Amino acid sequence: MAKAGRRPGQTETREQILAAARGLFAEHGFDATTIRAIAAEAEVNPALIHHFFGSKDRVFVAALALPVNPADVIGQAITGPRAEIGERLVRFFLSVWGNEEARQPFLAMLRSVASNENAARMMREFINRTVIRPIAAELGISELTMSAAGSQLMGIAMLRYVVRVEPLASASDDDVVATVAPVIQRYFD
Amino acid sequence: MAKAGRRPGQTETREQILAAARGLFAEHGFDATTIRAIAAEAEVNPALIHHFFGSKDRVFVAALALPVNPADVIGQAITGPRAEIGERLVRFFLSVWGNEEARQPFLAMLRSVASNENAARMMREFINRTVIRPIAAELGISELTMSAAGSQLMGIAMLRYVVRVEPLASASDDDVVATVAPVIQRYFD
Repeated sequence: MAKAGRRPGQTETREQILAAARGLFAEHGFDATTIRAIAAEAEVNPALIHHFFGSKDRVFVAALALPVNPADVIGQAITGPRAEIGERLVRFFLSVWGNEEARQPFLAMLRSVASNENAARMMREFINRTVIRPIAAELGISELTMSAAGSQLMGIAMLRYVVRVEPLASASDDDVVATVAPVIQRYFD
Repeated sequence: MAKAGRRPGQTETREQILAAARGLFAEHGFDATTIRAIAAEAEVNPALIHHFFGSKDRVFVAALALPVNPADVIGQAITGPRAEIGERLVRFFLSVWGNEEARQPFLAMLRSVASNENAARMMREFINRTVIRPIAAELGISELTMSAAGSQLMGIAMLRYVVRVEPLASASDDDVVATVAPVIQRYFD
């Protein structure tokens, strides 16, 4: 009984943490917001946030209801033969964006980023800190090159799923991979 | 006196045409809106629209207050040595987006496209009809390849000027050209 009774409390605490995180990320950006500050705002112990989420980027992903942690997806894509990073990256990216449900939070994010400077700062710091920097370092390429590769993926998201320009919108994943992968691969060679 | 007296009337007529065009493009998209329909809605002679603007894409550019006609810019960029299309394209693109004033209408467009399906349809039809199709035909590449090249430029706009992810946001135009041009050039080889 005691155990069954705890679950609503945990969910509530989790929601409390995420609400505090959303507010702080929006107000101060990703970099300046610490787990300690989120804990203080949510009136919980920082250890509990570590226990629930593991790391600040995971708090961020949960707070924005992103369907995946971009760092995880890209981390997976860059594991394996170097000559196939382009292909794996494009394929992973299309599999996430191709899922209608997974796409919605990203679309919401794009909308707020395009209209709200606080949202833009939050996203820019998150992307720089969790994607551009660590992955450029791991692959031994410049951060500028890594952000250019990211911009190719971002552009596909925009034209294929948001604006839905033809023939990019209706092409099969295989055709998009065949077209884009050999090109984006150049950033990693 | 007669001539001086005509000018406010002309400006008014032009505004009347653009207001009619904005409404029809938003409601029916770019493809289904004809100069004849805009003329009927604005209660002017279609010949007057041709006289003021020359073509439907120019009416569209004026109605949305775009600082340049994308088709013109890209048309210029693809004139010249084939091996340097990538470089000219990226350089032209950065020169337009790098201009704060020119950027504003594009940002407004991105915002409405991300939140409004009518705006998205209008843009997708405009881009397909005036950029992707004619330029793919002129260069002898597939429309899918052309739209992939366009997505690389769109992604740079998003990450450099909207989200402003570092180091892409602060890099010089020359550094961005040096990083992106050899890669995007692959689409045209």
